[in-house]
Amino acid sequence: MTENLMQALHELLEQKNVPALKVFLSEQNPVDLAELLSAENAMPLAKLYRLLPKTLAAEVFVEMDTDMQEMLIAELTDKELADTMSELFYDDAADLIEEMPATVVKRILRNTAPEDRKEINKLLKFKDDSAGSIMTTEFVDLKREMTVGDALDHIRRVAPEKETVYTCYVTDETRHLLGLVTALTLLTAPTERKIGKLMEEHVISAKTDDDREEVAKTLMKYDFLALPVVDSEERLVGIVTVDDALDVISEETEEDFAKMAAITPSETPYLKTPVLRLFRARIPWLLLLMVSATFTGMIISGFENALAKQVILTMFIPMLMDTGGNCGSQSSVTIIRALSLGEVRFSDVFRVMRKEFTVALLCGSTLAAVAFIKLMTVDNLLSGGVTVTVALVVALTLLCTVLAAKFIGALLPIAARRIGLDPAVAASPMITTLVDAVALLVYFGIATALLGL
Amino acid sequence: MTENLMQALHELLEQKNVPALKVFLSEQNPVDLAELLSAENAMPLAKLYRLLPKTLAAEVFVEMDTDMQEMLIAELTDKELADTMSELFYDDAADLIEEMPATVVKRILRNTAPEDRKEINKLLKFKDDSAGSIMTTEFVDLKREMTVGDALDHIRRVAPEKETVYTCYVTDETRHLLGLVTALTLLTAPTERKIGKLMEEHVISAKTDDDREEVAKTLMKYDFLALPVVDSEERLVGIVTVDDALDVISEETEEDFAKMAAITPSETPYLKTPVLRLFRARIPWLLLLMVSATFTGMIISGFENALAKQVILTMFIPMLMDTGGNCGSQSSVTIIRALSLGEVRFSDVFRVMRKEFTVALLCGSTLAAVAFIKLMTVDNLLSGGVTVTVALVVALTLLCTVLAAKFIGALLPIAARRIGLDPAVAASPMITTLVDAVALLVYFGIATALLGL
Repeated sequence: MTENLMQALHELLEQKNVPALKVFLSEQNPVDLAELLSAENAMPLAKLYRLLPKTLAAEVFVEMDTDMQEMLIAELTDKELADTMSELFYDDAADLIEEMPATVVKRILRNTAPEDRKEINKLLKFKDDSAGSIMTTEFVDLKREMTVGDALDHIRRVAPEKETVYTCYVTDETRHLLGLVTALTLLTAPTERKIGKLMEEHVISAKTDDDREEVAKTLMKYDFLALPVVDSEERLVGIVTVDDALDVISEETEEDFAKMAAITPSETPYLKTPVLRLFRARIPWLLLLMVSATFTGMIISGFENALAKQVILTMFIPMLMDTGGNCGSQSSVTIIRALSLGEVRFSDVFRVMRKEFTVALLCGSTLAAVAFIKLMTVDNLLSGGVTVTVALVVALTLLCTVLAAKFIGALLPIAARRIGLDPAVAASPMITTLVDAVALLVYFGIATALLGL
Repeated sequence: MTENLMQALHELLEQKNVPALKVFLSEQNPVDLAELLSAENAMPLAKLYRLLPKTLAAEVFVEMDTDMQEMLIAELTDKELADTMSELFYDDAADLIEEMPATVVKRILRNTAPEDRKEINKLLKFKDDSAGSIMTTEFVDLKREMTVGDALDHIRRVAPEKETVYTCYVTDETRHLLGLVTALTLLTAPTERKIGKLMEEHVISAKTDDDREEVAKTLMKYDFLALPVVDSEERLVGIVTVDDALDVISEETEEDFAKMAAITPSETPYLKTPVLRLFRARIPWLLLLMVSATFTGMIISGFENALAKQVILTMFIPMLMDTGGNCGSQSSVTIIRALSLGEVRFSDVFRVMRKEFTVALLCGSTLAAVAFIKLMTVDNLLSGGVTVTVALVVALTLLCTVLAAKFIGALLPIAARRIGLDPAVAASPMITTLVDAVALLVYFGIATALLGL
């Protein structure tokens, strides 16, 4: 798709056919245009941007990434920047100001109308992870006394400045939220009907300082197009729209993926992230985990003499460690996702433990049985020297390791959530390090007992 | 929230106040009602369901999970089932039929109007992972010659049967898709204006056999409320709405999480999944990975004599294996997500490799340097016997392992995608098993060379 558009754009640029270029650009979707304009550094960015109709230009601007926005602003005149700013929704303007360097912010604010600046400033005051930080103040506000006809007239007038007109909110004189009406209701109701009679009064809303992830999840849960946000005095101050909620959800999901792989999360697409930033996002965790693996090494070192007597035991260390790690990851990832989706709460901790214990018993016995048979047959043929006692030591260690791994894997995320940490930090790499130590201690413990080392 | 509702419901049930109960139920959101009715087995499910207004009842029905739906259907009379079926959107009805056991399906179809059955059957014919399988045929269809007034009248008439009226599609006599008009445009345009003059003609659409995940991503990318789906002859046959696209995306995300933890994906919430199903989802991967860890064991066994001479080398095996695994996971998870989000394609393979190589060089050297210093100081103090050569062997092995791990971690997901597999299968557990073997081979290779074992 974009490849075709790119080619068409290049042809028009070569022909220097400005009128045709204007028509072509005005017919594209803002998302595609942002991609087109960002695709190559060779693009005459500001020149093309100037050919766009004003509203479309602002829509394209919002879809660009931070670097491109900064480049474009540098090329725009003050007048052009002011035009763009006046077209932006307040929440997008606030996001822009949060992401630009200080000098650019100064220039942006200088070219923003005072009344817009006031609205944007209101949004900037909310904490980064709050509902306030993702809401917009540009919603349709109706009164109880209006008729459907009045409301439709009102919508027609204000629509260009509103982020959505498909859900309208009803407030009283002191801006308290009374109810909502959808555009569908307005379209299908008799023109003379009063809004007060039509509105849904059981409105699900959020507070400005609610966690933005919770708010996004609520919106998704109910399949709403927007969720109203009220202040501490129950006055309607903004709405969160579905597209912004979606952005929050996908950001949080990517954060979970990153944490599970022991990476500091970043919002930049992979190919655009500089090598040094990738390095900095990865190295602290690698160092931490490497150093903590020292304990595992120390356990082995403590049993050096025993190992020297039965070198064959060394052969099974990787398998025991890996299986423990895998079992632990299975449980921790399952529980981390269940917590994140709201399927499991702290009060379910005993149900989770019982379930994981049963699963661990089943997995552990199966693995132990298979390992025992494999050791006595395949491994004995391949390497020799596997006695029944050694096979028993390995099988018993497997069973205990799986039980411990699933217990740790399930409990740690719940405990992390309980003390206010992100459960995802208790993911695979951390579990692996812990389970390794447990596996080795159990291994050498059982080996010492059964083999008399 | 739900706790309060639950309490209110219990009180009304105890009072046996049916009129108040009816009012209470009719005021709730269908998502909450589905949760309330599913919460306890003790609930008089069908009795409460019968108190709901017809349309709300169908909305609640759709929000219930499969088990609850089956229980409810068993309690409903044929007449009540027919009422519910006539209220369902065709895509929801098709989903229901796909999930119910054969005997229930028979009863459902017997109680579905022939014309509805025809539409549902059309949807059932599409492949499970296709756009056709997630679309609905209930969209608003306008003609070019209509005026805005005609269109609004038409919408008023058909709205109750349509899944969304906020995006309307314009087709010709042969049902070819010509353009679209949003409800916002209709609301703000002059009543006499012709639809043909108003419609957007550059419509982004999907084909019935497009991959459903790609379709969902397209819809999200453009922040659309719906995406039209056309057949092989470019005739409009359905639309995918944003809520269904969201379900697809979150299903696929959970699948990725599961695969990364070596679990067979399942759609059932954790606490509702029976232990045996959890066991079956986990054990095949554990067995597979345990058996493949045999190779790692065999490598150790091959170097048994060397290890016996320098038992201290054993001490660093866990650290080398874990660090390799962690480095590999970091790269594989990063690339798997970048592929899934469309940030990286196969054609980027060389850029990815160059980037990962540089990051690996930075991470590898840092880790090697830290490990060398740590071995010569801390480990020497704690365990003793770490010569400069041993420390050098470990540091060099670390560097090589990190390079190999990041290379394997980045390349494998891209390769998997290339040959048509899900990149997520090349995630942490598989990478760990591979990287372990590489780490040990490098370790013993370098040790043999430098220590002359």
